[in-house]
Amino acid sequence: MGKQFLEITEKKEVEEVIADLSLKIAKKIAAEPEKVKIGGALGRIASADIFSPRNIPPFDRSTMDGYAVIASDTFYADESNPSTLIIKGYIPAGEFPSQSQHIEMGYCTGIATGAPVPKGANAVVKVENAREDGDRVKIYKPVAPAENIMPAGSDIKQGEKIIRNGTILTPRETGALAACGINEVLVRKKPSVAIISTGNELIPPGTHLEPGKIYDVNAQTLSDSVIVMGCVPLFLGIAPDSLEEISAKLKESLITGADVIIISGGTSAGVGDVLPTAIEGLGEIIVHGVDIKPGKPFVLGMVQGKPVFGLPGNPTSALVTFNLFVSPLLHTIAGIHSHNDEEDGKRIKKTKRIRAKAAVRIFSEPGRNEYVLVTLTKKIEEENAFFLAYPILTGSGAISTLSKADGYIFVGRGKEIIEEGEEVEVELLKYLYSKN
Amino acid sequence: MGKQFLEITEKKEVEEVIADLSLKIAKKIAAEPEKVKIGGALGRIASADIFSPRNIPPFDRSTMDGYAVIASDTFYADESNPSTLIIKGYIPAGEFPSQSQHIEMGYCTGIATGAPVPKGANAVVKVENAREDGDRVKIYKPVAPAENIMPAGSDIKQGEKIIRNGTILTPRETGALAACGINEVLVRKKPSVAIISTGNELIPPGTHLEPGKIYDVNAQTLSDSVIVMGCVPLFLGIAPDSLEEISAKLKESLITGADVIIISGGTSAGVGDVLPTAIEGLGEIIVHGVDIKPGKPFVLGMVQGKPVFGLPGNPTSALVTFNLFVSPLLHTIAGIHSHNDEEDGKRIKKTKRIRAKAAVRIFSEPGRNEYVLVTLTKKIEEENAFFLAYPILTGSGAISTLSKADGYIFVGRGKEIIEEGEEVEVELLKYLYSKN
Repeated sequence: MGKQFLEITEKKEVEEVIADLSLKIAKKIAAEPEKVKIGGALGRIASADIFSPRNIPPFDRSTMDGYAVIASDTFYADESNPSTLIIKGYIPAGEFPSQSQHIEMGYCTGIATGAPVPKGANAVVKVENAREDGDRVKIYKPVAPAENIMPAGSDIKQGEKIIRNGTILTPRETGALAACGINEVLVRKKPSVAIISTGNELIPPGTHLEPGKIYDVNAQTLSDSVIVMGCVPLFLGIAPDSLEEISAKLKESLITGADVIIISGGTSAGVGDVLPTAIEGLGEIIVHGVDIKPGKPFVLGMVQGKPVFGLPGNPTSALVTFNLFVSPLLHTIAGIHSHNDEEDGKRIKKTKRIRAKAAVRIFSEPGRNEYVLVTLTKKIEEENAFFLAYPILTGSGAISTLSKADGYIFVGRGKEIIEEGEEVEVELLKYLYSKN
Repeated sequence: MGKQFLEITEKKEVEEVIADLSLKIAKKIAAEPEKVKIGGALGRIASADIFSPRNIPPFDRSTMDGYAVIASDTFYADESNPSTLIIKGYIPAGEFPSQSQHIEMGYCTGIATGAPVPKGANAVVKVENAREDGDRVKIYKPVAPAENIMPAGSDIKQGEKIIRNGTILTPRETGALAACGINEVLVRKKPSVAIISTGNELIPPGTHLEPGKIYDVNAQTLSDSVIVMGCVPLFLGIAPDSLEEISAKLKESLITGADVIIISGGTSAGVGDVLPTAIEGLGEIIVHGVDIKPGKPFVLGMVQGKPVFGLPGNPTSALVTFNLFVSPLLHTIAGIHSHNDEEDGKRIKKTKRIRAKAAVRIFSEPGRNEYVLVTLTKKIEEENAFFLAYPILTGSGAISTLSKADGYIFVGRGKEIIEEGEEVEVELLKYLYSKN
């Protein structure tokens, strides 16, 4: 039970390492796109520019129910002096005009909205402005050439770019693909993330609780957080705190082809540096210890080109370090930082901050960058509404901390006390955790 | 091809009818919850209060690596005068102390973080403040009773409410469920929405384009919009514009058990009121025609207690009416309007408005509530940044309209012209269409 010392890295430095790493992995993932049917393309990210293989509409299309005519045949028509044209049948939507329906002067066809305009015709008279009488129709109002016709390719031209590489496919984009008849699309692969829990005391929820055991929380919260970040979690189970077992799980995660590996537990000095040793056996340690609380024993390693994140076992610390270090990487490699985002900076960062007042004096550990979880209560005083932030104790590793917390306050290493009533900035947690 | 007249209803009246209807259907759906495993619970809505079946932690738990002691045995310890205790073995995390490890005065056990504190002990001395020597340990710093122990039930008490009925399950909630060992949860059912396209000219994307045909866009955009609203789409295919075929599809959608039915196309006067007639044959028409453009031929009917929405076939009009009338209903019945939302009004309404200046004069049809789709361009003039809104013509039914549009301006029935440079409010579309 010898004490192990951590080499503490500064938070900012860790963030820079992760930012660099994210771009490298994002590039690799972008180079391996996959094809999906448009039925399953919603929310995915186009991984190439997409061009229309055809004109939309594919033919000159009537935009009204009425009569396809030669416009000049109607130029002098009015209520008292209608033009009379001979009707060569009717073109319903979905049918192509026959050769016998080609229009010459003095002739027309009945036509439905959406039907192809027959050869020779260059305008459509609305049904309201005409009256049928046997095989003839009287036109009471002139039409200009091209009136009530949507020309072939006027919506989308053959070869036109309809979707830009990097665009998130919303119903607008999937609709454009459908319009062009495209039913498969090349999209960015969703990164897969292997998740491993470690700890002799952990058992999965739904099993019988043996004495001395507790239920594994991190498998659930980390898997769900990975989904929220647009990636696919792959839970590999609970490993006991031994070098052999953890090394075996790490090797298993490499075989699955996961792009990122997350291991929670087994990172504090107490359990004897099992995880860092396991990582060193297969690759290298980049970070072991960060100057933040909670989250000090955070580990980042690289094994066969894959980042391995070692998060503390305490569920609150695990989620805080996930949000600080893992989620920016997943965000980037999942490609959520795409063209759509560039147009609106707000969607890049999922967090939201509000101002509040400290409800009580808050103490922070000297020389540490501390994240203090708080609950918020709304107060109204003399017509001014504001929020009061109450700190929640996290040291104990309570899981209820997380469900009670509305957000956290960052207390920098220089600061030790926040006075009661002092204004603080609260990073809201629900924006981090919500799928909506 | 006789002309049919629509009885126009005011938009506000339609919205009220739909709001009433939404609450009724939401209640019915809330009464039929379903059980899901916590692995698939993310983003679902709890349909009952959930209570913990046990204390968390289930036992008095050490929060440090060290020695479980009787606090009073350490009260006078200091660096020069340590207390010496006899070690009764070691309790690792995950193992329950044996009877022989019960602590009496003068004794202690080694203990790992997370391990159960043995009977008799009431504090844990950190490993840093002790030094082992054979079967004894020297304690150099006193501990207070309860120090470094997290008592059973101090995180979550047995019977404590951990999740409130109506809460959206984020990783925080699924984590709390896992902590309590709960692996199944009762959630609100996702409403199912039958989707039918009608039109003789329509063929599915991915098939060969016959002359006179066009690809069906609405099946895709409506299905994806239904997913965005938290419901499950069920596309029943394309029906030709005939009373028999549309009635048959309506009956089929009733058999599937869909909660809501959406039919696009076949609602304008031109195609002979096929859909309203089909609805009347099986139920009743509530709305036929609204005073808005695009979207005038909108239909709402009720068949066997299920709302049937008839949307125009034109993809842009279909999506505009979907967003105005269908999506508020789906939003309510999917239960997205839940407790989480109450805490933050902003998440209820998915739309976002920005101010812009009309880039050109915009004309609106007299006596109609018109939605003018616009694209936005950012301008900087003398250090002031603002948006210019350019109108997009929608009359033609272009699909590219939608992918080009950034949002829409509402022009009320009293207003016919928006002057160039006039300030307008643009409802942003990407907030409606985005899953993120």
